[in-house]
Amino acid sequence: MTLRVGVLGARGRMGLEVCKAVDAAPDLELVAMIDQGDVLFSASDNHAEVLVDFTTPDVVMDNLRWAIERGISAVVGTTGFTDDRLAQVRAWLAEKPEVGVLIAPNFGIAAVLMMQFAAKAARYFESAEIIEQHHPRKLDAPSGTATRTAQLIAAAREEAGLAPMPDATKEEVDGARGASINGVRVHAVRAAGLLAHQEVIFGTDGELLTIRHDSLDRVSFMPGVLLAVRNVQKHPGLTIGIDSLLD
Amino acid sequence: MTLRVGVLGARGRMGLEVCKAVDAAPDLELVAMIDQGDVLFSASDNHAEVLVDFTTPDVVMDNLRWAIERGISAVVGTTGFTDDRLAQVRAWLAEKPEVGVLIAPNFGIAAVLMMQFAAKAARYFESAEIIEQHHPRKLDAPSGTATRTAQLIAAAREEAGLAPMPDATKEEVDGARGASINGVRVHAVRAAGLLAHQEVIFGTDGELLTIRHDSLDRVSFMPGVLLAVRNVQKHPGLTIGIDSLLD
Amino acid sequence: MTLRVGVLGARGRMGLEVCKAVDAAPDLELVAMIDQGDVLFSASDNHAEVLVDFTTPDVVMDNLRWAIERGISAVVGTTGFTDDRLAQVRAWLAEKPEVGVLIAPNFGIAAVLMMQFAAKAARYFESAEIIEQHHPRKLDAPSGTATRTAQLIAAAREEAGLAPMPDATKEEVDGARGASINGVRVHAVRAAGLLAHQEVIFGTDGELLTIRHDSLDRVSFMPGVLLAVRNVQKHPGLTIGIDSLLD
Amino acid sequence: MTLRVGVLGARGRMGLEVCKAVDAAPDLELVAMIDQGDVLFSASDNHAEVLVDFTTPDVVMDNLRWAIERGISAVVGTTGFTDDRLAQVRAWLAEKPEVGVLIAPNFGIAAVLMMQFAAKAARYFESAEIIEQHHPRKLDAPSGTATRTAQLIAAAREEAGLAPMPDATKEEVDGARGASINGVRVHAVRAAGLLAHQEVIFGTDGELLTIRHDSLDRVSFMPGVLLAVRNVQKHPGLTIGIDSLLD
Repeated sequence: MTLRVGVLGARGRMGLEVCKAVDAAPDLELVAMIDQGDVLFSASDNHAEVLVDFTTPDVVMDNLRWAIERGISAVVGTTGFTDDRLAQVRAWLAEKPEVGVLIAPNFGIAAVLMMQFAAKAARYFESAEIIEQHHPRKLDAPSGTATRTAQLIAAAREEAGLAPMPDATKEEVDGARGASINGVRVHAVRAAGLLAHQEVIFGTDGELLTIRHDSLDRVSFMPGVLLAVRNVQKHPGLTIGIDSLLD
Repeated sequence: MTLRVGVLGARGRMGLEVCKAVDAAPDLELVAMIDQGDVLFSASDNHAEVLVDFTTPDVVMDNLRWAIERGISAVVGTTGFTDDRLAQVRAWLAEKPEVGVLIAPNFGIAAVLMMQFAAKAARYFESAEIIEQHHPRKLDAPSGTATRTAQLIAAAREEAGLAPMPDATKEEVDGARGASINGVRVHAVRAAGLLAHQEVIFGTDGELLTIRHDSLDRVSFMPGVLLAVRNVQKHPGLTIGIDSLLD
Repeated sequence: MTLRVGVLGARGRMGLEVCKAVDAAPDLELVAMIDQGDVLFSASDNHAEVLVDFTTPDVVMDNLRWAIERGISAVVGTTGFTDDRLAQVRAWLAEKPEVGVLIAPNFGIAAVLMMQFAAKAARYFESAEIIEQHHPRKLDAPSGTATRTAQLIAAAREEAGLAPMPDATKEEVDGARGASINGVRVHAVRAAGLLAHQEVIFGTDGELLTIRHDSLDRVSFMPGVLLAVRNVQKHPGLTIGIDSLLD
Repeated sequence: MTLRVGVLGARGRMGLEVCKAVDAAPDLELVAMIDQGDVLFSASDNHAEVLVDFTTPDVVMDNLRWAIERGISAVVGTTGFTDDRLAQVRAWLAEKPEVGVLIAPNFGIAAVLMMQFAAKAARYFESAEIIEQHHPRKLDAPSGTATRTAQLIAAAREEAGLAPMPDATKEEVDGARGASINGVRVHAVRAAGLLAHQEVIFGTDGELLTIRHDSLDRVSFMPGVLLAVRNVQKHPGLTIGIDSLLD
């Protein structure tokens, strides 16, 4: 039995990749490719069981209401979900308790695993630091992923009752020790040739554990999208992020 | 309330480190340091609740019987535990269901976490390879840790029903692609200056996840020993390895 | 004063990149873009001083004879240069001693520097090993660059009279220690998500020097092409590779 | 023919290592081990040709005057050489033009090669950043080696007329982008388990070159000391650092 999948935003950069990936997966069937100008009904007419939405903030809410009303689950990569919007989606879902909607800002499995592993390892090491490395066109430093990782580490350390990290630095050229995010030092490298990378270093006297993530191409999101497509019906209600699918 | 700890093999290289580590931990109290020529009774006289044994294969079984009979739990780093010996320990423990004995070939937390993370990540990536790097005095290649990691990865891939890893190699200089351990390629680097390192690389088109472990000094085993000391009483019966303490 | 440059194979993948790079360089002027169906004379008519040839083996020799006869220097990335062909080019150049032709199999500056640094470092360390990492569609293992690097290291070690590298391996799972290229161990990793990477590790008791190269995109060849364009006239005669431009 | 070597400070930590290293080298002969309370004349009586000085700032000048007067060359690892002291040594050497004295703050060959390679590579890449990693007991950040490397890179970039590095950072958590040393960003990681490490990353669109140095043990200085011992006589006058011996 294959799972019947429709793609909204099918002619966009990400949507196109999703169509290709669904098409190539033996357990999935691509039954509708919908974009601006197409009607949503082609999805229901073709008995889509799951919709993937990589559209735009101005149409995604209409798409979701339409899908939920018809009992179709959805995997959403479109951005712009405020707390209000999430509350609205939850309200719609309350009427249809068997439907699942998964909204994720990032479908990269490796990044999510890196954060999960970092959160788990944090309690066992005296020290933890993060080095993230990106292309020089990036506007913010550190990256959102690095900030989130630092927060997870800080929370795990606090829960485990760890002492502050050892650091005897007395003389510092401004900025050398990086940014402090909840007490975790984060260093942001920007250089031509880099894409998107992050290294989390954990240390105790005599040993180190390093978890590194390299993201080289947006095609890397497809395994995460497919994982969500295959599992969204088993998670009724609203799910944020693919983390809970990776346990 | 501190936990009262006795150390057997207290004058050996590892035992000495354990004594120091126990002594430095505010929640533990070092109540007995015992080595060849000393009597075990100093441990019971001083009300030790947990014994740590870094002795030798010829005395460890007597030590364990003595401890179990007296209801004292034990953390054991001594080697030489055959299946017969483990069965004997289990038989003794059957008589004292409240006593816990934890026997571990390796107390390095980072190495154990590396293996746990590798086992978890394995199902999500098309490819996985291992590079282990050691000093040139090492006799075997690959290392036991690398072999064990490869087995864990292979098992996780099989359970997830993954296809064989992609590899178009047609022309290979003998050995270039490493050793195959259950289908997982393992590369063993040996060079002066190296200590003990391992890198596990997971990849899918467009992204990589790398988990690296560096072991630089045997002092690194102490956090794992203390973790075992603090938890052994909560795990009655026989426990092999510190893995289950890290969940 | 700008240098006037013509590009042959201007509509090919590499030629197009060269055109863009020449166009963007303030000290270079793109005066001719020539491809199949165009006439070479547009290059001489526009007073090109240097030609860049990324065409095909069946036309490159005609292009070179034409350029040399007219006193135009050339930078060539086209493949297929046998010893016979090189001898022919040298013969043509003997008639025009002021003309320079540079033929390079690879214009990546980082790869060439990696090899130069490896060759220089080799004499100072007890051990040297190479790990190359590529996408799984690669047919040969190890890569040509890794093989060449190993040969350079072996030659430098021999010249310095170094003893064989230390390696106590007694028990080896077949292939674990990699391929031996002139006594230098080379390990070839193949995994989805990898592009083209190489790490050269040098070690002596207590310290390591590692040189790593990551090639992520063919656009990386442009700085090397431009370096050659700017310098080819200063190197009359035939030059193979960009190595000698990097001293 | 072996070279006859005397060691001053022979019972110190470094001196002892030097004695062992000289003794183990087939082309060197250890003819004098001198420390506090011993007389320098045992070196001349035993016809030492080169002295190695790992003593203290309060005696090293007397040692050097004595050696230079007798025509004995010297390799010096003792610290505390002010400009005045160096001028004094030069004045003594002016009287004995055949004698060589080499004073080095650091005999690690890998660190020196890392700096040489970085200086050479700097001109060919758009971007360069440095990550240095040390144990948390270090007082200064960044390390002296990182600062020196950054200065070398900045100087090479300026000489080559490179444009400033690309960096679009608009929003920065204070310190995230590291310290700027002459325009080169330097990041200092401090974590338990680390020893002394440095990574220099060079990048251009599409490729990266990374040079990494790991210093794990002071024994790593011995190859540099022996290199100096073997070559100091060929470099009459005063030489600072082992750099010029590595060309």
